[in-house]
Amino acid sequence: MKLHNYFRSSTSFRVRIALGLKGLSYDYVAYHLRKGEQRDKVYLALNAQGLVPTLETEAGDRLAQSLAIVEYLEEVYPDPPLLPAEPLARARVRGLAYAIACDLHPLNNLRVLKYLVDPLGHDAGTQADWFRHWVAVEFAAMEQRLSEEPETGRFCHGDRPGLADLCLVPQVVNGRRFDCDMTPYPTIMRIHEACMAIPAFAEAAPERQPDAEG
Amino acid sequence: MKLHNYFRSSTSFRVRIALGLKGLSYDYVAYHLRKGEQRDKVYLALNAQGLVPTLETEAGDRLAQSLAIVEYLEEVYPDPPLLPAEPLARARVRGLAYAIACDLHPLNNLRVLKYLVDPLGHDAGTQADWFRHWVAVEFAAMEQRLSEEPETGRFCHGDRPGLADLCLVPQVVNGRRFDCDMTPYPTIMRIHEACMAIPAFAEAAPERQPDAEG
Repeated sequence: MKLHNYFRSSTSFRVRIALGLKGLSYDYVAYHLRKGEQRDKVYLALNAQGLVPTLETEAGDRLAQSLAIVEYLEEVYPDPPLLPAEPLARARVRGLAYAIACDLHPLNNLRVLKYLVDPLGHDAGTQADWFRHWVAVEFAAMEQRLSEEPETGRFCHGDRPGLADLCLVPQVVNGRRFDCDMTPYPTIMRIHEACMAIPAFAEAAPERQPDAEG
Repeated sequence: MKLHNYFRSSTSFRVRIALGLKGLSYDYVAYHLRKGEQRDKVYLALNAQGLVPTLETEAGDRLAQSLAIVEYLEEVYPDPPLLPAEPLARARVRGLAYAIACDLHPLNNLRVLKYLVDPLGHDAGTQADWFRHWVAVEFAAMEQRLSEEPETGRFCHGDRPGLADLCLVPQVVNGRRFDCDMTPYPTIMRIHEACMAIPAFAEAAPERQPDAEG
């Protein structure tokens, strides 16, 4: 398999973790997002949205959208599972994952941050305030759920890392880049540290990728 | 079951369509988003994020996040299916659904549009430009995929409505409210019309709900 991606992309990071947890090897193909390489014709032929990541299977099929890729990996390579077996538990894990993937990360994506500067005319300070605002709103709700719900264990759901964790960790890493105050979220940070002690998470981190920059 | 929701919420609309397609009846509980009722203590006890919808099962379990709810319904009430059977096809449908749910809808959510006005100080015109910009970016990519990929049929994937369609239709309805020009998207609009000819879609529309306003 080939993973078309970018070291700093949170959605790429999610898929790298999933591939690692499943023990799947892949070729790493890098596109430099800040240089706009994901908008090149070559990449647009792979992914009409011009967004990373894209997973290219051995058969040449191309899958877009990080969470669609992770669900595909879960269906084709079920062991170890990234979702629990029982429907209500699966809904809890997906709900936690989507709170990040649908309500938080999209607002803080590179193209949105750029739009705040041009055409909206804001400066880097307002951009950072925007970023931290949405992290604070969503991490407060996430912290409440993770700290209060009995299903939380060493990880977001029980004692096995899964779909919610592989969304949470890249968001924490991203938040730190923007100097978000993480002290109000001790449960999130405890789970983050537990994840980063696992090689599949640590090796998927941005700074460990071949296209990493300082 | 009870659906805690709001007539105009796109994510609520998705779940109403899914319940309709599955032939499941439910009690409709309305929260007025513009009046902030989703931030009341009563609702926050049901949903820590303060976002609609929440599905409350007969057993009293509460599920958050529209797509987690739809996947739950798909697992517990598999007939008729909202996803195809084969993993690559499922990944295509989920990928189309997430292109809307993760890359488009979150940017045009009410709380984001409000933030553009306060604290960012923009007017309704800039707010509408923002809305239309993201619709144009994502609908162009979606139109390209739907018009070029052989898997597209009467609906987003083949001739049975499913997960991608129930994300697409509320987004089209929402886009029309903001006077988005839909003429560049003939395939999207053809699929939209095919969906709206189905009672489960038509009956889930905002104007058909008990809390509808003009």
